[in-house]
Amino acid sequence: MTVIYFDQAASSWPKPDGVAKAMMEAVQQYGANPGRGGHQLAVRAAQTISQTRARLAKLFGIKDPKHIIFFQNATQALNQAIKGFEWKTGDHVLTTAFEHNSVRRPLVYLRDRYGVKLTFIEPDHNGHIDLDQVSQALTPRTKLVVATHVSNVTGAILPIRQLGRLARQHHIPFLVDASQSAGILPVDVEEDCIDLLAFPGHKGLYGPQGTGGLYISPQIDLIPLFHGGTGSHSELEQQPDSRPARYESGTLNTPGIAGLNVGVGFVLEQGVEKIWDHEWMLTQYALEQLSQIKGLHLYGPELGVKRGPVVAFNLEGIDPHEVAMILDQHYGIATRAGLHCTPLAHQALSTSPVGTVRASFGFFNRKEEIDQLVQALLEIKAGLLG
Amino acid sequence: MTVIYFDQAASSWPKPDGVAKAMMEAVQQYGANPGRGGHQLAVRAAQTISQTRARLAKLFGIKDPKHIIFFQNATQALNQAIKGFEWKTGDHVLTTAFEHNSVRRPLVYLRDRYGVKLTFIEPDHNGHIDLDQVSQALTPRTKLVVATHVSNVTGAILPIRQLGRLARQHHIPFLVDASQSAGILPVDVEEDCIDLLAFPGHKGLYGPQGTGGLYISPQIDLIPLFHGGTGSHSELEQQPDSRPARYESGTLNTPGIAGLNVGVGFVLEQGVEKIWDHEWMLTQYALEQLSQIKGLHLYGPELGVKRGPVVAFNLEGIDPHEVAMILDQHYGIATRAGLHCTPLAHQALSTSPVGTVRASFGFFNRKEEIDQLVQALLEIKAGLLG
Repeated sequence: MTVIYFDQAASSWPKPDGVAKAMMEAVQQYGANPGRGGHQLAVRAAQTISQTRARLAKLFGIKDPKHIIFFQNATQALNQAIKGFEWKTGDHVLTTAFEHNSVRRPLVYLRDRYGVKLTFIEPDHNGHIDLDQVSQALTPRTKLVVATHVSNVTGAILPIRQLGRLARQHHIPFLVDASQSAGILPVDVEEDCIDLLAFPGHKGLYGPQGTGGLYISPQIDLIPLFHGGTGSHSELEQQPDSRPARYESGTLNTPGIAGLNVGVGFVLEQGVEKIWDHEWMLTQYALEQLSQIKGLHLYGPELGVKRGPVVAFNLEGIDPHEVAMILDQHYGIATRAGLHCTPLAHQALSTSPVGTVRASFGFFNRKEEIDQLVQALLEIKAGLLG
Repeated sequence: MTVIYFDQAASSWPKPDGVAKAMMEAVQQYGANPGRGGHQLAVRAAQTISQTRARLAKLFGIKDPKHIIFFQNATQALNQAIKGFEWKTGDHVLTTAFEHNSVRRPLVYLRDRYGVKLTFIEPDHNGHIDLDQVSQALTPRTKLVVATHVSNVTGAILPIRQLGRLARQHHIPFLVDASQSAGILPVDVEEDCIDLLAFPGHKGLYGPQGTGGLYISPQIDLIPLFHGGTGSHSELEQQPDSRPARYESGTLNTPGIAGLNVGVGFVLEQGVEKIWDHEWMLTQYALEQLSQIKGLHLYGPELGVKRGPVVAFNLEGIDPHEVAMILDQHYGIATRAGLHCTPLAHQALSTSPVGTVRASFGFFNRKEEIDQLVQALLEIKAGLLG
């Protein structure tokens, strides 16, 4: 059975030609440790990594690639960003109710461990945020503003540029979780006033799982999450100051980064605009078609309001897990059911505790696949509800 | 030019047949997010990961695979182990002077940040440790004993079983850094009384870079280094208690782990004994041959004393970096020069600040390659020193 893959928000699939091949080459032809030896194999590994950093810098408008740090995933990047500050009792963080557990749980940890106060601003279903409310919530103790760019539950886009400018006016570092937007929507750390940008490699950047990164503005010095060997300055007892070494202890995922190199190259070659146009077309089409199914509830932004390529829905009277299971087993359509690691957003949608079915689209999906989803849902509804 | 690869202690190369292929399959055929969806592709990803965990458990004598946590590398695993305790001023850690910066720097961080006291026991050049000295250095405040199994500089083997039993008698958790021994020497967490075992995936386990892990004994609860989405228990505000989810937030490196699965499978199939026999034969042969070069100084354990497959040497009067560079560029022999992220060990050898040349061997190396190294060194010596 051919698989129709609508779980792109969890991990993109398929990958562009060349991603797997680049990984294989890295393993077979230059499996040495980058930055840990001067010999040819190690040099080639280091070159691949440095090219990937340069491509990411280009994509995000980052002036110097050395401020991009590789991590295993966006979650680790977010942990480095959030736990890298010197937290004290009474410090304050402003964030949103749309955050994934990868932001929420580290913040709850700060609250429980250090007595940090948290404010969760509630965007409306279109992703609109009342900036006056944000301004009023900021205090002299606010040390960080964190926002996801795009909700992984509904696709709602948050106004990160406006939040960034507001945070900048107050001299508060601004952390953006680009898990659902990197490679999908334009992100520019200068224009958007982003001090810390966490991104996965395996979603909109079309790299393999096991990759992700964090941009750390040159103005910000974080306590490293990992201490260890950096391949340079071995004689120092403490972690060296130079970037990226300061935050990149231990051996990097060279094959993964070689794959990411091809993925980001693909995104740069196509251009984020073209990728967005296609995904937005698919999303609008899906919303139009799904909205015609009686008893199907759609969540998130209204029709016509720009959103990420994510569609959340429920069939009235049927558990979303059952819908997703039947879609998978009978129709070969991969979606995801549940809370998607974002319980607060589901509270706002009143879809707790079972959540929704989520269909998320990527550059390689086609309109005809959405037709098949719609047809399958009509059959499921007829079969189960008569 | 064919490469002779003697930098196995940094990263093993080549990998067994099937490692790269398994990674490619993971990327091409089931690129979905393990544990983040019930659909076929996600299920296949989860199966690969669970098989790898089971193989690792078998290799290390671990009863329940769920206590094995995947990390990007051994350094991150060590950081989780070391920073996972509740440190208080005056707490004490006993460790050795043979530790890599991946152990030393996290410990120095504890000292600088929390006022933790550190004792670095000095093994002799054969790796022998005076256990009475260890006993006397333990205090009621000693909260952790950490030792590398094999020195990455000289190959000296430390008596981890004796250290483990001593630590167990004192009810102190024992952390072993198996970076240079996993897959090379027998390690059994029960017999060796190991509570925490950190290992890389890309050295003696023949997996790709980007993999590694930490065994955490069921008796020990660490503060997670990462908080975030775990694919299950999404509704919980805090990190769930169940393993491995508690310590594995965010998307795993599925392709890397698929490669590691084949690597560990290879190790289990060959057997650690057979791998050790071959590498020990190579190491003894190298030591015998190298010791016949006049003006070549060997470091580490004496001839005949068991050691890891690592040989450190210097040519009198020539900087080790120059030797390694010529070996690489003129002879295609990859070695590594410098301190190897382990400055204290070099202080003990009196080889600071330039360090040594290190040749390290793996299962795919052959005796004839060592002959070529010896020949090359003779030529370098004649060419440079006349």
